[in-house]
Amino acid sequence: MANSKFEYVKDFEQPDILLPNTWIVVRIDGRGFHKLSDHYAFVKPNDRRALDLMNAAAVEVMKELPDLCIAYGISDEFSFVFHPTCQLFERRNGKLVTTIVSTFTAHYIYLWSIYFPNKPLQPPYLPSFDGRAVIYPSTRILRDYMSWRQVDCHINNLYNTTFWTMVQQGGMSNTDAEQELKGTVSADKNEILFKRFGINYNNEEEIYKKGSVLYRQYKLQEPKSAQASMEDDTSAPEEKQSRSQQDKLKKLRRKAQVVVDHIDIIRDDFWERRPWILSNKPGTLPVEN
Amino acid sequence: MANSKFEYVKDFEQPDILLPNTWIVVRIDGRGFHKLSDHYAFVKPNDRRALDLMNAAAVEVMKELPDLCIAYGISDEFSFVFHPTCQLFERRNGKLVTTIVSTFTAHYIYLWSIYFPNKPLQPPYLPSFDGRAVIYPSTRILRDYMSWRQVDCHINNLYNTTFWTMVQQGGMSNTDAEQELKGTVSADKNEILFKRFGINYNNEEEIYKKGSVLYRQYKLQEPKSAQASMEDDTSAPEEKQSRSQQDKLKKLRRKAQVVVDHIDIIRDDFWERRPWILSNKPGTLPVEN
Amino acid sequence: MANSKFEYVKDFEQPDILLPNTWIVVRIDGRGFHKLSDHYAFVKPNDRRALDLMNAAAVEVMKELPDLCIAYGISDEFSFVFHPTCQLFERRNGKLVTTIVSTFTAHYIYLWSIYFPNKPLQPPYLPSFDGRAVIYPSTRILRDYMSWRQVDCHINNLYNTTFWTMVQQGGMSNTDAEQELKGTVSADKNEILFKRFGINYNNEEEIYKKGSVLYRQYKLQEPKSAQASMEDDTSAPEEKQSRSQQDKLKKLRRKAQVVVDHIDIIRDDFWERRPWILSNKPGTLPVEN
Amino acid sequence: MANSKFEYVKDFEQPDILLPNTWIVVRIDGRGFHKLSDHYAFVKPNDRRALDLMNAAAVEVMKELPDLCIAYGISDEFSFVFHPTCQLFERRNGKLVTTIVSTFTAHYIYLWSIYFPNKPLQPPYLPSFDGRAVIYPSTRILRDYMSWRQVDCHINNLYNTTFWTMVQQGGMSNTDAEQELKGTVSADKNEILFKRFGINYNNEEEIYKKGSVLYRQYKLQEPKSAQASMEDDTSAPEEKQSRSQQDKLKKLRRKAQVVVDHIDIIRDDFWERRPWILSNKPGTLPVEN
Repeated sequence: MANSKFEYVKDFEQPDILLPNTWIVVRIDGRGFHKLSDHYAFVKPNDRRALDLMNAAAVEVMKELPDLCIAYGISDEFSFVFHPTCQLFERRNGKLVTTIVSTFTAHYIYLWSIYFPNKPLQPPYLPSFDGRAVIYPSTRILRDYMSWRQVDCHINNLYNTTFWTMVQQGGMSNTDAEQELKGTVSADKNEILFKRFGINYNNEEEIYKKGSVLYRQYKLQEPKSAQASMEDDTSAPEEKQSRSQQDKLKKLRRKAQVVVDHIDIIRDDFWERRPWILSNKPGTLPVEN
Repeated sequence: MANSKFEYVKDFEQPDILLPNTWIVVRIDGRGFHKLSDHYAFVKPNDRRALDLMNAAAVEVMKELPDLCIAYGISDEFSFVFHPTCQLFERRNGKLVTTIVSTFTAHYIYLWSIYFPNKPLQPPYLPSFDGRAVIYPSTRILRDYMSWRQVDCHINNLYNTTFWTMVQQGGMSNTDAEQELKGTVSADKNEILFKRFGINYNNEEEIYKKGSVLYRQYKLQEPKSAQASMEDDTSAPEEKQSRSQQDKLKKLRRKAQVVVDHIDIIRDDFWERRPWILSNKPGTLPVEN
Repeated sequence: MANSKFEYVKDFEQPDILLPNTWIVVRIDGRGFHKLSDHYAFVKPNDRRALDLMNAAAVEVMKELPDLCIAYGISDEFSFVFHPTCQLFERRNGKLVTTIVSTFTAHYIYLWSIYFPNKPLQPPYLPSFDGRAVIYPSTRILRDYMSWRQVDCHINNLYNTTFWTMVQQGGMSNTDAEQELKGTVSADKNEILFKRFGINYNNEEEIYKKGSVLYRQYKLQEPKSAQASMEDDTSAPEEKQSRSQQDKLKKLRRKAQVVVDHIDIIRDDFWERRPWILSNKPGTLPVEN
Repeated sequence: MANSKFEYVKDFEQPDILLPNTWIVVRIDGRGFHKLSDHYAFVKPNDRRALDLMNAAAVEVMKELPDLCIAYGISDEFSFVFHPTCQLFERRNGKLVTTIVSTFTAHYIYLWSIYFPNKPLQPPYLPSFDGRAVIYPSTRILRDYMSWRQVDCHINNLYNTTFWTMVQQGGMSNTDAEQELKGTVSADKNEILFKRFGINYNNEEEIYKKGSVLYRQYKLQEPKSAQASMEDDTSAPEEKQSRSQQDKLKKLRRKAQVVVDHIDIIRDDFWERRPWILSNKPGTLPVEN
């Protein structure tokens, strides 16, 4: 029995190849996590277990997809970055995004009980994530994207820390706290924390202030000139890698450990000392320490 | 601290709204399920627990997304269908696909231990799924898509049933069985099954022969003329529903039970007796039986 | 000398195939025609020569591209319609649109001196057009598109006729006329024309009131039921035509005369009497009259 | 009379904004120019009048669209390049391409009689062009695109010059000449030209060997390091220009003369001496000479 009579329906599938030689960022976001975090009583403003679970799932994604250079997470979102030379799934948008979303979800659900041993998952309150891919034509813009997320982390965390301190320690109602914070700038919030509650925001945990940066660990390099790290790797597309070269690189990358860091990624220093992230050329594996 | 300096990176996000008034099919596929089914020792040619788990996860997706009209699953794939009038997530491709992929994955992982109580999940062998959306401009073509999948189910199942019977009962090597089946037509395979093994393929279980059809259950209607079910519901787009109408319909749909059926969806009868599937107008709830 | 070193740049070309089995409308618009019509002193509110020139250029486009079923023009815009079964240029968006835009422009410039013998073209005031393709999934929506343009023609023409009569015959300033017309409905404008100037809008020329409809002429058919003309030709995609069938149809279409009509295309009558337009099956050539 | 009932058809228009901060190349090609050049008896292998006409039309396009940085033409094709910072028509693909195609066509038809005074245009043999836009994420790739076209120019011209010399001066049939050239490399063709016909290919006219480069003329700069010209201008997207800055730049660009050059654009020298092309910052207007 041939299937040819109906096979014409395949003609309706449309290609979705992402432009070559551009950075691919896949950002995933928790669906309805506001409601979810209420249901499972996440600690406010930051639930360390929930963040650790996000990071653990993201580490697994990094390990399964060695093409990923770096990932950055805050709250219930995570950004995964593919290098401009990436050829995974022929750079098909849908395939890249759904693979990441599904792999992340699978590990998140699977690992839940480790991080929340006393709060078993209860359908229909199952966590899930949506996602999208965005491409960036230059390293400068990719770094601006990363900076954008980290600045957002800072803005949100300072607000949330202040808000929840006013509510939890100051005994204010949500509405009153919200009202008072309206129109305030960073300095105002720092002052509220310090003067009223004796809290120095700078002493808050790095994971809350900086978010989580995931990358493969090699030997750190001496800081170089900013220029170096910004030199555009997209500018030599002729060095298109053969399949066997790609496979060899993948193997090398699998050997490196994926680390979770809480560190400034806006300034050049982070990138200069870890040139393999933007160059996509594996560094030297560190001596076990 | 304003984030405006970096916010320009948002301009690189590109819209992906699906053409209005078209059927949307989101098909998801298991990633690397060949390897996975070996690892967890799925029964060949069909593992009933694995299919039941697929169906259970798909039922949950149907329940979470009342906009879905129908779903159809075979093996490790599932097709979910949104009506041409669907406005969910403003019909954004990425949002629709990732939501379904993630929700399905979450339930699949969560429910695994129910269907495979003796085979706990073992990372890195975590099941995951990729997916894609395809749009179809008319009801005729949507039905041809559904037929395409069901014909595929039949072709694959007849082949697999014959192949594995030759191997498991006939003691042939995989290579020999494959070799002998090369170039055979349906009749040949039926004959092999019957003459050599006394198996009448028609008596195989419906779930294997027909796949699984999921839809909301209302009172069946008397069969009508074929024309009726094929009349193109996309032809009256002016009846665009208001938000409140949509919400009302969603509530009605949530009340209906999602059933799992194993039935012919190529002929008209299935569609004529369940006109609510193509019309997207909820039918009459059946009296409890 | 091989060109392979640079040929990778071709990989950046992205496909733009339009969804199969949908109506394709290519609408072109005059660029900066407001300024242009001032420069060449087009008659207000309608310059018959300019409209005739638009129609003449559009007739040539229809003759060069027998895949076109129908075209509709008002003012400095023209909509060209390809049938859902059209395979021209593999339905590539850019190719279809630029071919129409360029062919139209070429004929418009070439024919200019016939319609404006006393107004030679003067660079930089050369007419040009931009264009875009839109796809529609059903015949009902395609007809609504055509209706939308014809209603727009009516609305604009009634306004312009009233406005310019008030200015030209009533001696009002542009600003005063505009001011008085603000917020008026059709009946108000009809009354202004009739009461103040003795003009019965119904007696205005059809080309101004109805726009211009271009199609291939065959023997008209007896009016049928509305249903007939609305039956969705997109619903039988399996009848995909072979290349030789397509070529044969093209030849037949080339034999038919392209006519310019000024007629209601909102009601069913127009379409029922010319079933070849929506069916894409050439009719009977009329006896020479 | 409101038009709202049908206006929903506008929802089917889909956005086609080109990715920000990428080079946009619009390449147009003559439609059916093989047949056309026969009909109007273009001189083989190169018709100087036809090339001059192409260049004249392209100059007009450059003048009408000051956003264009550079254009490059060979035979019946022309590539027009917009800078990554270009915001014209909000970077809408269709609008950019059709505007260029139509403007070019208009001037080509209008100017025809100047370049072919004895060969009036004869419908249906009216020249027309199709076109497409491609985006390139870095200056390196844009330059590789330009090199690709110029290498193509060289390959084609060497072949055509040899072929037509063999036919016109050598009295060979087209088939014989084609046969003999099959599999030859550049050196072979140079030798045929020189040994048999005493023709030194290097002495052929530059316009045939190099194609035509169009750009705005400012004072040439001293050659700099290659690095300079390759530094990626896309890397500073934060310098997004205000509307008024853009308008000012447009005015400045309009003042510069558009020149037609026949020169190597593969090596760095061309770009280093004309830094305004890649930087998009107008240079110093040359003293009138």
